[in-house]
Amino acid sequence: MNADDKKAVLRLFTYGLYVVTCRHDEQRNAFTANWLTQISFEPPLLVVSIENSADSLGLIRASGMFAVCVLRSGQRELAGLLGRSRRRAPDKLAGIEWLPTCASPEREPVSAPPILADSLGYLRCAVDYDTAAGDSTLVVARIVDACLLRGGEPLTMRETGFRHSG
Amino acid sequence: MNADDKKAVLRLFTYGLYVVTCRHDEQRNAFTANWLTQISFEPPLLVVSIENSADSLGLIRASGMFAVCVLRSGQRELAGLLGRSRRRAPDKLAGIEWLPTCASPEREPVSAPPILADSLGYLRCAVDYDTAAGDSTLVVARIVDACLLRGGEPLTMRETGFRHSG
Repeated sequence: MNADDKKAVLRLFTYGLYVVTCRHDEQRNAFTANWLTQISFEPPLLVVSIENSADSLGLIRASGMFAVCVLRSGQRELAGLLGRSRRRAPDKLAGIEWLPTCASPEREPVSAPPILADSLGYLRCAVDYDTAAGDSTLVVARIVDACLLRGGEPLTMRETGFRHSG
Repeated sequence: MNADDKKAVLRLFTYGLYVVTCRHDEQRNAFTANWLTQISFEPPLLVVSIENSADSLGLIRASGMFAVCVLRSGQRELAGLLGRSRRRAPDKLAGIEWLPTCASPEREPVSAPPILADSLGYLRCAVDYDTAAGDSTLVVARIVDACLLRGGEPLTMRETGFRHSG
């Protein structure tokens, strides 16, 4: 296989940018994801590919939940900030406004993932199963709640100029 | 869950459009896919979600191979044509130029998927495993060959105005 061609073709793939959030006990995290797609209508399922070394993978496995927040056009800087590893940027969630996932905080489970207040909308997902995928893990999850927060255009990899494929 | 919000948020997901091709014995097929993403760098893996009822799923399982051809901007009509079920459009591959995947036809295995000549490039993939995903099946595959055919911009769901999510 020609490595340059592989890289060039993979960079033609079109992606959006999302913030995946999770919480377990006192720990919460959020990371920027683009390897993410819906995979079923009925039931409504999506999959996200998460690096095996990511802290969030453990939190998602422990809590069985995560949320997908859709970034809006113009949030390149935020996508870059949340794309850093929590180990290298332990305070990366500070200074960003987060919402609880439920309208009624008293009904909020301890594992409820935080929601990026300044996103277009979010999906709350319950993990169905995960499965090995090379240097990453595929997490297959059912969409259990959804909320559209505002109108606007989604952020895309193309807008950011980021390159994750290759 | 509010069904309108679920639909609205899922429609904010950003997708490209690809033609997935397969062949087994004398049967070949091609279909338009957008639920497709890279999932690992090392080894290079991707996943595609295929409806359980699709003819191609059987061909891909039998041959253990498929190719992903990246559609180019302007190919909305072709994407729509190949998005139809083979049962409803049995001749949908006719009149489209297809290439063998190998430069040397004599080395071409009988299961080699055809390549859409008028695409930006392609990845030939060997199935690693498949796994259930509601009304669809996730096919996890290793990229074993790649070829960039030409320069150009990829076709996106946004350009076509198609709606697959919801």
